[in-house]
Amino acid sequence: MSPRTKKTGKMRIGIYPGTFDPITNGHIDIIQRALTLVDHLVIAMGINASKAPMLTFEERVALIEAEINPLAKKLGASISTTSFSGLVVDAAEDHGANVIIRGLRGAVDFEYETQMVGMNRIMKPSVETVFLTASPETQFISSTLVRQIAGMGGDISRFVPKRIEKKIFSAIARQNKRKL
Amino acid sequence: MSPRTKKTGKMRIGIYPGTFDPITNGHIDIIQRALTLVDHLVIAMGINASKAPMLTFEERVALIEAEINPLAKKLGASISTTSFSGLVVDAAEDHGANVIIRGLRGAVDFEYETQMVGMNRIMKPSVETVFLTASPETQFISSTLVRQIAGMGGDISRFVPKRIEKKIFSAIARQNKRKL
Amino acid sequence: MSPRTKKTGKMRIGIYPGTFDPITNGHIDIIQRALTLVDHLVIAMGINASKAPMLTFEERVALIEAEINPLAKKLGASISTTSFSGLVVDAAEDHGANVIIRGLRGAVDFEYETQMVGMNRIMKPSVETVFLTASPETQFISSTLVRQIAGMGGDISRFVPKRIEKKIFSAIARQNKRKL
Amino acid sequence: MSPRTKKTGKMRIGIYPGTFDPITNGHIDIIQRALTLVDHLVIAMGINASKAPMLTFEERVALIEAEINPLAKKLGASISTTSFSGLVVDAAEDHGANVIIRGLRGAVDFEYETQMVGMNRIMKPSVETVFLTASPETQFISSTLVRQIAGMGGDISRFVPKRIEKKIFSAIARQNKRKL
Amino acid sequence: MSPRTKKTGKMRIGIYPGTFDPITNGHIDIIQRALTLVDHLVIAMGINASKAPMLTFEERVALIEAEINPLAKKLGASISTTSFSGLVVDAAEDHGANVIIRGLRGAVDFEYETQMVGMNRIMKPSVETVFLTASPETQFISSTLVRQIAGMGGDISRFVPKRIEKKIFSAIARQNKRKL
Amino acid sequence: MSPRTKKTGKMRIGIYPGTFDPITNGHIDIIQRALTLVDHLVIAMGINASKAPMLTFEERVALIEAEINPLAKKLGASISTTSFSGLVVDAAEDHGANVIIRGLRGAVDFEYETQMVGMNRIMKPSVETVFLTASPETQFISSTLVRQIAGMGGDISRFVPKRIEKKIFSAIARQNKRKL
Repeated sequence: MSPRTKKTGKMRIGIYPGTFDPITNGHIDIIQRALTLVDHLVIAMGINASKAPMLTFEERVALIEAEINPLAKKLGASISTTSFSGLVVDAAEDHGANVIIRGLRGAVDFEYETQMVGMNRIMKPSVETVFLTASPETQFISSTLVRQIAGMGGDISRFVPKRIEKKIFSAIARQNKRKL
Repeated sequence: MSPRTKKTGKMRIGIYPGTFDPITNGHIDIIQRALTLVDHLVIAMGINASKAPMLTFEERVALIEAEINPLAKKLGASISTTSFSGLVVDAAEDHGANVIIRGLRGAVDFEYETQMVGMNRIMKPSVETVFLTASPETQFISSTLVRQIAGMGGDISRFVPKRIEKKIFSAIARQNKRKL
Repeated sequence: MSPRTKKTGKMRIGIYPGTFDPITNGHIDIIQRALTLVDHLVIAMGINASKAPMLTFEERVALIEAEINPLAKKLGASISTTSFSGLVVDAAEDHGANVIIRGLRGAVDFEYETQMVGMNRIMKPSVETVFLTASPETQFISSTLVRQIAGMGGDISRFVPKRIEKKIFSAIARQNKRKL
Repeated sequence: MSPRTKKTGKMRIGIYPGTFDPITNGHIDIIQRALTLVDHLVIAMGINASKAPMLTFEERVALIEAEINPLAKKLGASISTTSFSGLVVDAAEDHGANVIIRGLRGAVDFEYETQMVGMNRIMKPSVETVFLTASPETQFISSTLVRQIAGMGGDISRFVPKRIEKKIFSAIARQNKRKL
Repeated sequence: MSPRTKKTGKMRIGIYPGTFDPITNGHIDIIQRALTLVDHLVIAMGINASKAPMLTFEERVALIEAEINPLAKKLGASISTTSFSGLVVDAAEDHGANVIIRGLRGAVDFEYETQMVGMNRIMKPSVETVFLTASPETQFISSTLVRQIAGMGGDISRFVPKRIEKKIFSAIARQNKRKL
Repeated sequence: MSPRTKKTGKMRIGIYPGTFDPITNGHIDIIQRALTLVDHLVIAMGINASKAPMLTFEERVALIEAEINPLAKKLGASISTTSFSGLVVDAAEDHGANVIIRGLRGAVDFEYETQMVGMNRIMKPSVETVFLTASPETQFISSTLVRQIAGMGGDISRFVPKRIEKKIFSAIARQNKRKL
C-alpha cells in the first residue's frame, strides 16, 4: 500500500517549552507550524523561582488557550498547557512527548540551542528536538522586547494579539500600583 | 479522549533532499531522526545537469535503500527514493510530502537555509521546513570532504558505512581508468 | 541656529554596487532606504568578463530606471546608473560618491562585507561604507535564487516587480532558443 | 543640473544611542564616520533606572562634548547630547532625527541589532537604522571591558582619550571610598 | 641539524583561565590538548567577588589536581593551579606564561573571545592567545548547564568524571541545607 | 624543579598549510605568532591540479623564505617550506609536525575549520589543530582580494611586503602578455 493511500500514521506528541510572558505573534506562528508536525502539542511554561513573571501562570494559560485552541481545531490537532520547573526532557517524558519544538531566530539562537540539544540527547536519547523558523514578519519579536516596549508605553499591537495587548497593559498598571 | 490513549495520528510524509554523493553517516543520522517525525520519508536526489556525480543515480539509490530500509522497518516507517531536477517544493508536492527535512551543521548552514525557507514558503506555503541536527560525532561529515579524502587515498571508514566505502573506492578507480 | 530650523545640509552622493541580474524586491527595498540617506544614488553594475549575465547591461539599466526613477522623485532624490569593472572605491571616486551602500542579509554576509570594508578603507579612507537591512519580507531574496527558480519555471511574482518578471522569462526563452 | 554641481542637499539629523559609560575610542570612531552621513548628530544616553553608571550623566556629557565638538566642527557638522529613558525611536522623533546610527562589532551584534531594527521599523517606519563598522584598531573595545580593566588597575590608555582615562580613575577612587 | 633530530625545544608555559565550577569533561578535553602544546599548564581559577561558586576554591583545586595530574604525567608535562582576581594577562605574566589557552564552542564564543584577544594584545603584546576546540562529544558541555541539571536532580554522569559528580551532589545538598 | 627554572621543553614542530598565492601581511602576522608556539614551522603550499596559481611554486617559496627566515631567526625558531597535494594530516605526519596552525578571520571561517578539524581528528588523532587570530590591522586581508585588487591596478602596498608587491605586478604583466 502506498503511503499516499494510507489515512493514518503514528500518533505524535510535541512539547513547546517557553516562558510565554507574554505569548507573541512569533510564538503563535511557530505553534501553527508545529501543529502540522504533531497531533497534540503540550505548551509548557517554565517556572523560574528567582524571576517574577509579568503575567501570572493562570493569565498565561488563559491567553494561550483562548488564542491557540481555535487554531488547533482548525488544523485537526489539539493542545494542552502545563508548567514545569525542571528539565525540558523530563517534562517531555511526563507528557508522553517525543518531539521538542524550538523556534529559531538566528545564528546566535542556533548555537545556544545546539548546546542544549547536545546535553538533552545524552540525558534522553528518545526525545528529538526539531527547529522551526517563524515567518519573516514575526521572527524578530521577543517577549522581552514586547514587555520593555509596553513598559515604556509603546505600541505593541503588531507584536501580540489584541486580547494579549490589553492584558499586558493591565498587568503593567497593576505592577505600577504595587510600586507606589 | 487524552492524546496518550489514542493510537493513531495524521499520516505524515517528509522529503529529504540532497545529492547523497555519497550518503554519509551524517545523512543516516538525520534520516533516523526524521523517521520519528514522519511515517514515510522520500529521499530525493537533486540532479544537476552541469555537475557529474561520482556515483551514478542507480548506485546511490541502491546504497541508500540497502542502508536505510532496515532502519526504517525497525522504526515502523518506510522510505522511497526519487530524483528531482527542479524546485524542492515542487518535488514535495509531487510526492505528497508536506515536510521538508534539513540537517543543520552550523550557523552558516542555518543562514543559507533561512534564505531558502523564505523563498520556498512564498512559493508553497503548505510545505513546512524542519531542521534537525545530527549527533556531534557525525555532524561535521560532508560528502564533499569524503570524496576529497577518498580521492587522496585517505581513510573514510569512520564517515560512511562499509558498503559505501567500497563503492566509493571502486568509483574512484573507474574515474581514474577513464582519465588514462 | 538649531539644526531643526535649517533647511539644507551637505550634498550627499551614494553608490550602490551590485550585479542586479535582475534587480529584485530586496534591492528595491534597500534603494528606497538609501534614498533617505543620500541626495543622489549611483546604481553601479559590476561587469565581470568571465560570467555572462542573464539580462544584458542595457536591459538591466532600463529596468532599474523604470522601477526606481518614480520612487526617487517621490523621495526628493535622484539616481543614475553606471557600469564598473574595477574596484568599487574607484567607481565611487569617479562618481563623486563618498558613501557605499550595502544591504545585509545575515551574519555570514556581514563577515564577508567586513573584510571588504577593511580593504576598501585602506585604499580610500574618504569613502564610508554603510549597511542597511531590507524589510523581513524581502530580506531573503537573492538574484541567484530568482534566476534559478525562473529557470525551472517557478513563480517569481513575489520576488520581483511585474515588468521584471516578464523580462526574465523572455530572457530565459532567448537563452533556451540559443541552446538549440 | 548634475548632482556634482549642486552644493546642498537635504538636512539630515542622526541619533546615536548608547550608555557611553565611558565613551571609548570605538564610539569616537563611529561618531566620526556618522558625521559624514548627517549634518547634526544627537548623542543620546540611555538612562536605566536599575543600573547605576560609573560616571554621572553630567560627567558623560562633559566628556563627550569636550572630545566630539572639535571633531564635528572640523567635519562641518554639529552634535548635541541628550538623555532618554524610553524607546530609541521615540527619542529619534523628539529630536527630529530620521537616522539611527549603530556600530557593529561582529556577527553576534548584528543578530541582536536585526531584532531591534525589526521592532523599531514597525513602531516608526520613517526612522531608518544604518550600521557602521569601526576601524579594526578600535572595533573590539567595549565600555564594559574598559570599566573592568580600569577597576583592576589595568592600563586603558589605548582604549579611551587621556581626559577620559583620568575621569575613570577618579570615578573608581570615588566608588571605592563610598564602599568603605 | 634538522628539527626532527633535535630532542628539545623552548620551554613553554601556558595558562588556562576559567571558573571550573565544576571542571567538566569539556575542560578536561581542552587541557589534554593544551598539554601537547606546552610543557607546563597553569590552571587559573577566576575569583569573582560578586558571585558565590557552588564548589569552594579548595574543592575545585582538589578535583582538578586529582583528575589532571595523572593525565599530565602520562603526556610528559606538568600542571599547577592558582586563583586570580584581576586580568588574565597579569596572571599570565605572574606565572611566566606566554600562551593563554581558550576552548571554543562555536561562532558566538569566537566573537566574544576575539574582543578579549584584541584588548589583551594591547595590554600585553608578548602573551599569545591560542584557541582549541574540544572533541564533538564534549564540546557542548558547559559548567552552567551541568550545575542546572544537577540542581534539578538530572543525570550528569556523562558530563563530568565520577569523582566530580559526587562532589557536586554533596555541594547541592549542602546548599539546600543552608537554605532551610 | 619549578617550570620557570627549566630552560628547555619538548621539541615542537608545527605545520601551516595554505596556498600563499601570495603570502600576505595577514599570513606573516600568523606565522610570527606561531613561531612563539613551535620551534620549527613547516609552511606547506597546497598544490591544486585544477587551479593555476598566479605565482609559481618556486616564486612563492623564494618570497616566503626571504620574508620569514629573518623573522624566525629573531624569534629563535626555524622554518622550512614544502608542497603537498593530499591531506594536511598526511603532510603533517610526513614532516613530523604534531600541530596544525590555522588563522581565523571570523565566525564563518571558524565553522568551516571546525568541520575540517572534526574530520582530521578522526584520521590522525595525534595531530592537534590550533587557531590563532591575526592582529586587527591584517585580519581582513585575503590573497584572493589582493590578487583581484592588483589585477585591477589597485594599490596593494598595505597588504603585502614591498618585495611581494613587485613580484605580483610582474606576474600580472606576464599573465597579460600570455593572453595576447
